[in-house]
Amino acid sequence: MAGNTFGQIFRITTFGESHGQAIGVIVDGCPAQLPVDLDFIQAELDKRKPGQSKITTQRKESDTVQILSGTFEGKTTGTPIAMIIPNEDQRSKDYGHNVDVFRPSHADFTYYTKYGIRDHRGGGRSSARETAARVAAGALAKLFLKTQGIEVFAHVSSVGKINAPNVDIKNAAEFIEAREQNIVRCVDPATAEEMIEFIDGIRKQGDTVGGKVTCFATNVPAGLGEPVFDKLHADLGKAMLSINAVHGFEFGSGFDGSEMRGSEHNDIFLNNGGKVETITNFSGGIQGGISNGMPIEFRVAFKPVATIMHNQQTVNSAGEASEISGKGRHDPCVVPRAVPIVEAMAALVLADHVLRNRAAKV
Amino acid sequence: MAGNTFGQIFRITTFGESHGQAIGVIVDGCPAQLPVDLDFIQAELDKRKPGQSKITTQRKESDTVQILSGTFEGKTTGTPIAMIIPNEDQRSKDYGHNVDVFRPSHADFTYYTKYGIRDHRGGGRSSARETAARVAAGALAKLFLKTQGIEVFAHVSSVGKINAPNVDIKNAAEFIEAREQNIVRCVDPATAEEMIEFIDGIRKQGDTVGGKVTCFATNVPAGLGEPVFDKLHADLGKAMLSINAVHGFEFGSGFDGSEMRGSEHNDIFLNNGGKVETITNFSGGIQGGISNGMPIEFRVAFKPVATIMHNQQTVNSAGEASEISGKGRHDPCVVPRAVPIVEAMAALVLADHVLRNRAAKV
Amino acid sequence: MAGNTFGQIFRITTFGESHGQAIGVIVDGCPAQLPVDLDFIQAELDKRKPGQSKITTQRKESDTVQILSGTFEGKTTGTPIAMIIPNEDQRSKDYGHNVDVFRPSHADFTYYTKYGIRDHRGGGRSSARETAARVAAGALAKLFLKTQGIEVFAHVSSVGKINAPNVDIKNAAEFIEAREQNIVRCVDPATAEEMIEFIDGIRKQGDTVGGKVTCFATNVPAGLGEPVFDKLHADLGKAMLSINAVHGFEFGSGFDGSEMRGSEHNDIFLNNGGKVETITNFSGGIQGGISNGMPIEFRVAFKPVATIMHNQQTVNSAGEASEISGKGRHDPCVVPRAVPIVEAMAALVLADHVLRNRAAKV
Amino acid sequence: MAGNTFGQIFRITTFGESHGQAIGVIVDGCPAQLPVDLDFIQAELDKRKPGQSKITTQRKESDTVQILSGTFEGKTTGTPIAMIIPNEDQRSKDYGHNVDVFRPSHADFTYYTKYGIRDHRGGGRSSARETAARVAAGALAKLFLKTQGIEVFAHVSSVGKINAPNVDIKNAAEFIEAREQNIVRCVDPATAEEMIEFIDGIRKQGDTVGGKVTCFATNVPAGLGEPVFDKLHADLGKAMLSINAVHGFEFGSGFDGSEMRGSEHNDIFLNNGGKVETITNFSGGIQGGISNGMPIEFRVAFKPVATIMHNQQTVNSAGEASEISGKGRHDPCVVPRAVPIVEAMAALVLADHVLRNRAAKV
Repeated sequence: MAGNTFGQIFRITTFGESHGQAIGVIVDGCPAQLPVDLDFIQAELDKRKPGQSKITTQRKESDTVQILSGTFEGKTTGTPIAMIIPNEDQRSKDYGHNVDVFRPSHADFTYYTKYGIRDHRGGGRSSARETAARVAAGALAKLFLKTQGIEVFAHVSSVGKINAPNVDIKNAAEFIEAREQNIVRCVDPATAEEMIEFIDGIRKQGDTVGGKVTCFATNVPAGLGEPVFDKLHADLGKAMLSINAVHGFEFGSGFDGSEMRGSEHNDIFLNNGGKVETITNFSGGIQGGISNGMPIEFRVAFKPVATIMHNQQTVNSAGEASEISGKGRHDPCVVPRAVPIVEAMAALVLADHVLRNRAAKV
Repeated sequence: MAGNTFGQIFRITTFGESHGQAIGVIVDGCPAQLPVDLDFIQAELDKRKPGQSKITTQRKESDTVQILSGTFEGKTTGTPIAMIIPNEDQRSKDYGHNVDVFRPSHADFTYYTKYGIRDHRGGGRSSARETAARVAAGALAKLFLKTQGIEVFAHVSSVGKINAPNVDIKNAAEFIEAREQNIVRCVDPATAEEMIEFIDGIRKQGDTVGGKVTCFATNVPAGLGEPVFDKLHADLGKAMLSINAVHGFEFGSGFDGSEMRGSEHNDIFLNNGGKVETITNFSGGIQGGISNGMPIEFRVAFKPVATIMHNQQTVNSAGEASEISGKGRHDPCVVPRAVPIVEAMAALVLADHVLRNRAAKV
Repeated sequence: MAGNTFGQIFRITTFGESHGQAIGVIVDGCPAQLPVDLDFIQAELDKRKPGQSKITTQRKESDTVQILSGTFEGKTTGTPIAMIIPNEDQRSKDYGHNVDVFRPSHADFTYYTKYGIRDHRGGGRSSARETAARVAAGALAKLFLKTQGIEVFAHVSSVGKINAPNVDIKNAAEFIEAREQNIVRCVDPATAEEMIEFIDGIRKQGDTVGGKVTCFATNVPAGLGEPVFDKLHADLGKAMLSINAVHGFEFGSGFDGSEMRGSEHNDIFLNNGGKVETITNFSGGIQGGISNGMPIEFRVAFKPVATIMHNQQTVNSAGEASEISGKGRHDPCVVPRAVPIVEAMAALVLADHVLRNRAAKV
Repeated sequence: MAGNTFGQIFRITTFGESHGQAIGVIVDGCPAQLPVDLDFIQAELDKRKPGQSKITTQRKESDTVQILSGTFEGKTTGTPIAMIIPNEDQRSKDYGHNVDVFRPSHADFTYYTKYGIRDHRGGGRSSARETAARVAAGALAKLFLKTQGIEVFAHVSSVGKINAPNVDIKNAAEFIEAREQNIVRCVDPATAEEMIEFIDGIRKQGDTVGGKVTCFATNVPAGLGEPVFDKLHADLGKAMLSINAVHGFEFGSGFDGSEMRGSEHNDIFLNNGGKVETITNFSGGIQGGISNGMPIEFRVAFKPVATIMHNQQTVNSAGEASEISGKGRHDPCVVPRAVPIVEAMAALVLADHVLRNRAAKV
């Protein structure tokens, strides 16, 4: 039983391989009458596309999205919305040298074992190229969330051991504007500069490095999330862990919270001008799996990109010792391009839960 | 759209509140002809039940499981298996004093906001009591996994800032035996002693503390996991995050991996006597969302229990400032009892993916 | 992948075998704040229970339902509602003589082939006893539909070749009252008398006979149904075909419609005092898979009960020729007891689609 | 919650409107290593396409399918298979005159009510054009079923009141060859001639007529179907009822069975050279919702096409009385083109249940 569908009501199914004809997505369950801003969808994709800056892969893809169905006169009709993104830069010859060997910490070996087929063209379905389809669908989810007043925004909070200071998240538009001032997408300019320099150095060594993305959602009404399994943070966690290269997820106090005492960690309620709020937010905006109206905050850890420009030992599909040489055009650090992907998946989870919550009461 | 069902093929639906008549679970999709060892299921529940030791809650529940359907002459029949656990110790009067106030960092406020109903009897559905149903279902999943040779085992790897050293996981039976030698369920005796002393001190202060559980699965065949959304670690992550009090999940290199370089982090393949293995295991046994045959390893962070024996400020359901006093019988640290829950959820995910993988090839 | 769950948002999972400890159902997704009238639920079950009259089986089961979870102070809480019905009359010795032979037109052979287990106690899971759980869940669905003004009601429209005349369906309460005046549950008294006499004769011959149930739903708002696969009539059809002994389903003009011309069959729209209606209703209240506000009407065909009091040739589990003798206590005609089952399944489909439709528009 | 996905393991999601850019389908869960015969898929589409003969619509669409993903070197890879069929003949001007009125017995009114959008271009999503996507996916399912030895084949068994005699179904290839000898797709030549003449007369009157399709599946192993809700015939029934214009479904004895006695209707088991078979097949190859190894047989009733070349009274979107004139190019009788659609949906259900059944036993 395959797993290319995500969401229950606002539901997406993606398709496509890195070196096939096109990738794409069907969004089923997007409510009718939503104005579709194609420029916004394209702008989101542009934040993810390769070749943006010196610290991303130099591959070039325009990643131009086309809508094939589901809209009429600029609005959604309630029918499935199909979007495709043709693949342009299919230089699969770059991969010719690796046809029969398993690249370390890639999915070559596991796909081959599972399906008995070796699609050697640059990762095939396991390529992060698939996430472009998610960003397109997530942009639609963001448009829906805007009708509900909900905002989702993220930035790069660490690269290697370089950590950004905590940020004030009062205003989504200002946050995004600040973040887009630099190519690493960190909202703190000084940290951003340090990160960029570090990544550039890593790149010159033919190496890669990991990092973290921190994501916020504000104006989320209390009540989203479906215990006991589809808790809001459980669905957010699954969404993030399904993104290529993610190795960890935490919300609110996260792993640090495991070192704290209850008397420090409890978020005390107060009445703030008629609205129930909490003084601290170690809960990350979610209690018992349901949003409590405070800002949602979570962090996502990305491992270093597995493709490095070094020669590495490995085995081939016959199980024989082999060597793999470093070629191709890859990202030295994935997090700057991961920011729109994290936002997209978060938006999809929230859109789904807004709709699911409509059935909570008679 | 509610969320009390987990799994696609090996699928469970739980029900029940902490102070209702019973809690329980329906397991639908457990394959036929599986011998059902009721003593094993009960023994798993006994590891989770309250009142086990001085560092767990003093509430008493025998948590005796009954199977209502789905077995015949000691074997599963392929029909749904219903298991119920009657509630015995329903001292809801302990909660009488908190009828109308929202306990900090509990789910009282969010459930009330979502459903418009205040079930004040000790958490109702949001109580961790629900996890007993998961442990019963997970025990069945473990019995199925045993027929496939797969073993799942966990222990407490940290309490507060006390961390256990890394452990050798060669043998599941030995691991579990060592872990069960102490009441905190840490496989390292010296660390266990330190943890127990620390928790006992916390308890005497009427406070609580968080901790971490580390879980392993061995003998997992390569091939489990369904990209791109139902990656094995994404489903494990959702399973863990759905457990009460969990604030973080990481697998393999986890959050530390975000600080590493690709040249350090890549797991080099080699042929170990005919089996493809990796020298290191930063991938935690999962590459591209699919198991690679190496041991699966992940860690789960639990926040401190929210119920403390201190008075706390809060608001009531009218939004008025109020105070809550600390009473009742609660765990000073949840991780010792969380070990069987983590194992149960991991077993459910793996059983589901073993069955899902049967459709991978013609 | 098992199939004991029905519905997407208003979702039920049933369990239990005819001769196990209990049967039951979990209803997940019933909206919170619904007043639960337990007497109504029991009254619905009483219409299905065995031993009601001379034309039903003489087995006796009180079929007393218990609610284990999901309600608080008489209202639903939004959490899963578990209901169980203990099995009382488990005279499995009646079945002892058939332990190893496959009863003709029963599910003995197919269950044995599929699962490799022969639960010979009177049908086990394949017994129509399972439908009691559906009736309990359907009663809850009816209570929800009442809050929306929707009514569901059915009667026996044929037994063998005896057909009831078409009926006026203005008023649900009157319809049900008229139907309950006779033991065959046909709204037309003269036809009912004829049916009863016929069934009684069949019974005396140790034989059985089939029949049809016609079901209506009124006050259904236009807009329910989810094209292209989850059309309202497609979900109704699946619901009905999942009931034991059902061999056919048709709505609106049904099979007769296949003989008609478009110029006869088209339902002409008109404005009836501000409401768009149709003059005729060959569409059965559903167009393009979506309700149009006219009464929904469908018919369900039941085959004759397979258990007859005659000796029959068959084979045993070794494939050897064998004979089966007619014993036990069974229904000569299933349709009088099927009326509440048909209504229950229809109510479940409608409740699910009312909730699904809440996500149709922004 | 939208409904454009069908199937659990072999699962399809369709998209597209009659007058948009393209229609298409994603098949997720098709097992890896299946050889993909694109000519076969196209040939199946050719049986459904418009403009085939004088008794079908004169619209012209080449309905050329393209595969965008999921195959590599002629075989499935286990990843989602996207197929699109561009729309060519989008003469939406034919529909211009009906922009604001609701066509009788079409889905105009119900879609408008549900979604609040009036896509007036020839039916939009409710057009039977969507079924081309199903035929493409169904062709893939047939290719998979061939690897299991299972064959699915159907023909037109009635048009209006003209009924074909019962047919011998020994051989699928011969059956299909005989059926394709005539443009109405009835396997009996004499009846076919009568049907063609009748439809041609109806067409000249600007009218339409309904009919029935009978479908068989042979070599189906015993064991397919998942009680209690996902019974094989319940899933077949839903699949058929989801096809445009279908008003009824019956299997085995069907509606006639409701008039029979148990002593006539029971299918007596015998051992036919080592295989358990039944003498008669009133069960239609399915007992208790599970296939029993006998041929599966079911019938599907189609209402007459709603578009007729007559003027009709109706209302417009303001609810005002209006008139609709008959224009455009439509089918006088849908059943000849429905044969491949019925087969496709049946193949999808069977492929899904073959894969689901793999989880039945340990």
